[in-house]
Amino acid sequence: MTADGETLRERRQRETKEQIARTGLRMFSEGGYDETSLAEVAARVGISARTLFHYFRTKPEILAYWLDDDFAAALTARLREDRNGAGPAWPLLREALAALVGRHQGPESLTVDRLFASTPSLRAHKQAIYAEWEDAAFAGLTAARPQEPEHRLRTVAMLGIGCLRLALGARYAAEYSVRLDRLLAEQFAAVAAAVEGSGSGTGA
Amino acid sequence: MTADGETLRERRQRETKEQIARTGLRMFSEGGYDETSLAEVAARVGISARTLFHYFRTKPEILAYWLDDDFAAALTARLREDRNGAGPAWPLLREALAALVGRHQGPESLTVDRLFASTPSLRAHKQAIYAEWEDAAFAGLTAARPQEPEHRLRTVAMLGIGCLRLALGARYAAEYSVRLDRLLAEQFAAVAAAVEGSGSGTGA
Repeated sequence: MTADGETLRERRQRETKEQIARTGLRMFSEGGYDETSLAEVAARVGISARTLFHYFRTKPEILAYWLDDDFAAALTARLREDRNGAGPAWPLLREALAALVGRHQGPESLTVDRLFASTPSLRAHKQAIYAEWEDAAFAGLTAARPQEPEHRLRTVAMLGIGCLRLALGARYAAEYSVRLDRLLAEQFAAVAAAVEGSGSGTGA
Repeated sequence: MTADGETLRERRQRETKEQIARTGLRMFSEGGYDETSLAEVAARVGISARTLFHYFRTKPEILAYWLDDDFAAALTARLREDRNGAGPAWPLLREALAALVGRHQGPESLTVDRLFASTPSLRAHKQAIYAEWEDAAFAGLTAARPQEPEHRLRTVAMLGIGCLRLALGARYAAEYSVRLDRLLAEQFAAVAAAVEGSGSGTGA
């Protein structure tokens, strides 16, 4: 075992996975997403298609790796840590997202954003990932604030991942000229301004 | 032209489209979504595959028809009608969604919900439709409230479609035992309670 509890075998697997993902991303970006097959990625890495399949079963999974493979799990874990805390769910989720937002700032992000925007099927895949993040936020909030009504926590999860999604979109629209943490804080403020500045939200 | 400005040719096309969609939905539901091909749907309707392709290019499009073919356009149009009005964007969108929610209460809804939930690819497709609705809400809000900052209107669109999405999910979870308009009003109230009850939303 290494210092952080990872066995040698686990480390090799992690490195192989990253190498496949990195090679795939470069080939998609340079040669075209539709034009690149998983078999070609495997050949470039120097492994069999069968070995590659052990790590990634589809091309979208390679892209999703760069959108943050472990974000959903990290978000649930961070929220769960506060299970002995008090206070409402919305500030708790805001704080967790602000703390984790650095995970979306790797040097590959712009390339990944461009590829995800390039076909309807990839755009749909990205929306499905946001839905998974929302489920992860809900799971963490449920563990941290079991006394709050379920539909309230679902709503808070929707607000938080909605803000993160819009902040990621705004960064892409600005061609990465604005920091993501700042855009996220602006989104949180925009939610408060939209809701608080418009009277009660109880009627339609 | 008929009374509502539809030509005979347009009416025939609309009826053919609905017949294909109805036959497709029944075949997906009875014989399995993956097991039913577009060619089989065409044969059952009694048209060529080529004619069917003129109306629907993919199986998910047939399902999407039942999720409300024209909802995005109707939502944009309704918001745009208020372009000479005043008042903040969030109540405007709430009112528009509450007025249009009856469109999601057809007798086919439960069957359609079940099919959309049945495969990862269809779940992703449904998320992509919600993203289109959010774009439609944003377009209508931009026309109705051009003086409000763009990112504020994006946020309001996210809130509104997020509430509709959660209300549709809650109705499905409750096996259609609760009315959608009531669930939607509860979601609006939950947003207000989450945000207003938790101090300023400006920090994280």
